[in-house]
Amino acid sequence: MSDNDTTIAELRASVQRFVDERDWAQFHNPKDLSVSLCIEAAELLEEFQWLRPEEVETASRDLQARARVAGELADVLIYAFSLANALDLDIATAVLEKLAASGRRYSADRYQGRFRLDE
Amino acid sequence: MSDNDTTIAELRASVQRFVDERDWAQFHNPKDLSVSLCIEAAELLEEFQWLRPEEVETASRDLQARARVAGELADVLIYAFSLANALDLDIATAVLEKLAASGRRYSADRYQGRFRLDE
Amino acid sequence: MSDNDTTIAELRASVQRFVDERDWAQFHNPKDLSVSLCIEAAELLEEFQWLRPEEVETASRDLQARARVAGELADVLIYAFSLANALDLDIATAVLEKLAASGRRYSADRYQGRFRLDE
Amino acid sequence: MSDNDTTIAELRASVQRFVDERDWAQFHNPKDLSVSLCIEAAELLEEFQWLRPEEVETASRDLQARARVAGELADVLIYAFSLANALDLDIATAVLEKLAASGRRYSADRYQGRFRLDE
Repeated sequence: MSDNDTTIAELRASVQRFVDERDWAQFHNPKDLSVSLCIEAAELLEEFQWLRPEEVETASRDLQARARVAGELADVLIYAFSLANALDLDIATAVLEKLAASGRRYSADRYQGRFRLDE
Repeated sequence: MSDNDTTIAELRASVQRFVDERDWAQFHNPKDLSVSLCIEAAELLEEFQWLRPEEVETASRDLQARARVAGELADVLIYAFSLANALDLDIATAVLEKLAASGRRYSADRYQGRFRLDE
Repeated sequence: MSDNDTTIAELRASVQRFVDERDWAQFHNPKDLSVSLCIEAAELLEEFQWLRPEEVETASRDLQARARVAGELADVLIYAFSLANALDLDIATAVLEKLAASGRRYSADRYQGRFRLDE
Repeated sequence: MSDNDTTIAELRASVQRFVDERDWAQFHNPKDLSVSLCIEAAELLEEFQWLRPEEVETASRDLQARARVAGELADVLIYAFSLANALDLDIATAVLEKLAASGRRYSADRYQGRFRLDE
C-alpha cells in the first residue's frame, strides 16, 4: 500500500477501524482531538528543536531522523483523519477549496518567490 | 472530487502544484513546515477554546462552525502534505505502520473503552 | 523563596545564570526560544489530554498530578523568561499594558461572566 | 512599575484582579487555561514563522516587531499566571526547583556550549 494506490477514504477507514476496535469513538470529540493534534504537532516540531538550517538538512538525510519524523507526522495525520471522521468532513474537498481560496489571496505572479509583499 | 475517488498521491500533487506555481519550495524546509503545522494546529484548537462538552456538540452541528473547522483542518493537512513532499515520505506507509505499532501497544481487549490501564 | 518575596527581575536573573553557566546564550535566539516555549506548552497541555471536566478537577487536587503540572509550567516560564532576557523586554510592563488594553476591549460590565457578546 | 520592583505575587494579583472584575474565574479550569496558553504560544511563534536566522536578528531590533512580540509574550504569561492562580502553585518555587533539577541533569562542565552529548 502506498500513496499512489490508496484513497483518502481508505486511509480514513483504517484509522476508523483502529478506533472502533477499541471503542474509543466515545473519547473522539472535536475539542479533545484538536488538543491531541496540537500535542502531536509539537512533538513533530521537537524533532527540529534548536537545529540550525544546515543541521535541518543533515537530519533530512539521516535515516533514523527520517523514521522519527515519519512516525510523528503519522500521529498528526491520525488525529487529523480522526477529526474528519468524527465530524464527517470531506478532506479532499476541504483541501482543494482552501488551495483555491489561498490561490486567489496569493496570486502566483505577485507572490512569486516571496510570501509577503513588503519584502 | 471527494475522499472516495482521490488518492493520497493526487492530493499531495495538488499541494505541490500550489507551492511550485509560487516558487515556494525554497521556504519549505522541514523545520519551518513543522513550525507552520504547529501554528495551524493551534488555530484549529482555537475553534474549541473555552467550549464546554455540550457546546462542542452544538458547534459540531453548526454549519458555519463546521466550515471554519474544515478550513483550519485543511491548513493543517496542507502543511502535513507539504512536509511529506519536502522529505519524500509515503503517508499511507507511515500511517499504517504507526497504527500497527499502536495496535501492539494498545491491544484491543486490554484497552477496550479506555486509553489508560490505571483507570 | 516564594512569589511574595521574589521580584520578576530576581527570577529572570536565576534563569539567566543557568543559561550563562552552560554558555547556552548562543542558542537562545527568539525564534528557537518561541519554538521551545510552544513545545513545553504542549507538554503542559498533555497533562490534561482527554480529561473530562470532572477529571480535571480531580487531577487539580492530586498531589502527583499537581507536581507534574508545576514542573511543566516551570518549563514554560523558563523559556518565557529566557525570551524576555534575550530581547531585553520588561515583563511587568508588557503584562500590565496588555491587561490595560484587554480591559478596554473587554469592559467589565459588558463582559461580566461571559467572554463573547453573542452568547 | 518594572521587573526590578515588582514581585511575582504582585503581578499575579494584577492578573487575578482582571479575571475577578469580569467574573471569569468560572472559565479558568486548568485544562482550558493550558489550551489557551498553547494557542498564545503559537501566536508568539507566528511572529518568527518562516524567518531565517538573519531575519530573526533584524526583527529583534525592529521596534514594531519587538512591541508585537512583547504583546504575545504577555498573553502567554497572563495565562501562565492564571494557571498558577487557579491551582495555587508558587511560581518561584516551581522555577527554582526545575532549574535545580535541570542543573543536575545538565552539569555545567559536560554541557558547556552544547545541549546534546552526542554532538
